[in-house]
Amino acid sequence: MLKAMRVVILGSGRGSNAEALLRAQAEGRLGRARVVQIFTDVPGAGILAHGARFGVPATFLDPAPFKTKLEGEGEGRYIAAIAACQPDLVVLAGFMRVLKPGFIQAFAGRIINLHPSLLPSFPGLDAIGQAWRRGVKITGCTVHHVTPEVDGGPIIDQAAVRIEPSDTLEALAAKVHAAEHALLPAVVARLSAG
Amino acid sequence: MLKAMRVVILGSGRGSNAEALLRAQAEGRLGRARVVQIFTDVPGAGILAHGARFGVPATFLDPAPFKTKLEGEGEGRYIAAIAACQPDLVVLAGFMRVLKPGFIQAFAGRIINLHPSLLPSFPGLDAIGQAWRRGVKITGCTVHHVTPEVDGGPIIDQAAVRIEPSDTLEALAAKVHAAEHALLPAVVARLSAG
Repeated sequence: MLKAMRVVILGSGRGSNAEALLRAQAEGRLGRARVVQIFTDVPGAGILAHGARFGVPATFLDPAPFKTKLEGEGEGRYIAAIAACQPDLVVLAGFMRVLKPGFIQAFAGRIINLHPSLLPSFPGLDAIGQAWRRGVKITGCTVHHVTPEVDGGPIIDQAAVRIEPSDTLEALAAKVHAAEHALLPAVVARLSAG
Repeated sequence: MLKAMRVVILGSGRGSNAEALLRAQAEGRLGRARVVQIFTDVPGAGILAHGARFGVPATFLDPAPFKTKLEGEGEGRYIAAIAACQPDLVVLAGFMRVLKPGFIQAFAGRIINLHPSLLPSFPGLDAIGQAWRRGVKITGCTVHHVTPEVDGGPIIDQAAVRIEPSDTLEALAAKVHAAEHALLPAVVARLSAG
């Protein structure tokens, strides 16, 4: 029997992409990937409930002392806790902190991120809002390897979303999230196939 | 009877997008748009032959004294010759010169450009090569209004092209060009509808 690909998810929000991964796993659409742990840097984040629902440990892990990056003691706590999970893949699913080289090197080549634009367009925060304000007609989402350059690592796969004249920003956000929920499990399943 | 939308095309190369417009017009797919003149800044450019084939005047117009921009005497010649065509729309279809504010103001709101990427990704030269080297999985093409900022004007429409693992750079270029040949006539037809 082939070895499972152990997946750790990091997220800060409602966890809809973690949910998409867990549902895909429950439905047998995640290949050899197995989500073994979810960590969040936000106490009470919605992502925690998905872990409970799908029987996967989901834990708040203190990211202090910084607010927008993971460095110092917080970085040390995350590296230690994630390493203890022996992950083959660390998935950043709405993890709202900049990772520093120490973290990235600890899991080199094993960290992927989901970004809500067709990179290299609209890196950084509020990518959907950026696309909306620029008036593009096609945007989408990207799964990429994480390197020290924010949103700059090698691209693994992307999905396109068309912006219709009738779309509101909220409607666009819903379409991009739907594309994410399809793309991320597909990419993880493919990575698990080697 | 509704008035035709008079279109002037500027191009520097083989003119495949001018050909796509002329073919669409011949097949009744260009709405009220009518191509009345083609100008090129390159003596003997392939684009000239398409004019002859479709019965549209196609003329080399001296862009001197500059090599990569249209300024000074050349700009004056282009403004005068294009204005004499009384254009409702000036289409840049592979016109390889930077336009200056004098030209853009002369035809303000009436100049559109076709760019072979999903802007704002990969502005400037060799957009298809840029996308290829960055390793994106989705690229495409953009039709946008021309403003003094290169490749920065309001986007009118875009089309996406998926890059498959088996694609070569040449195969990708062919796919992007095919997307352009569909997008540009559709946009011009739509603009002619008001």
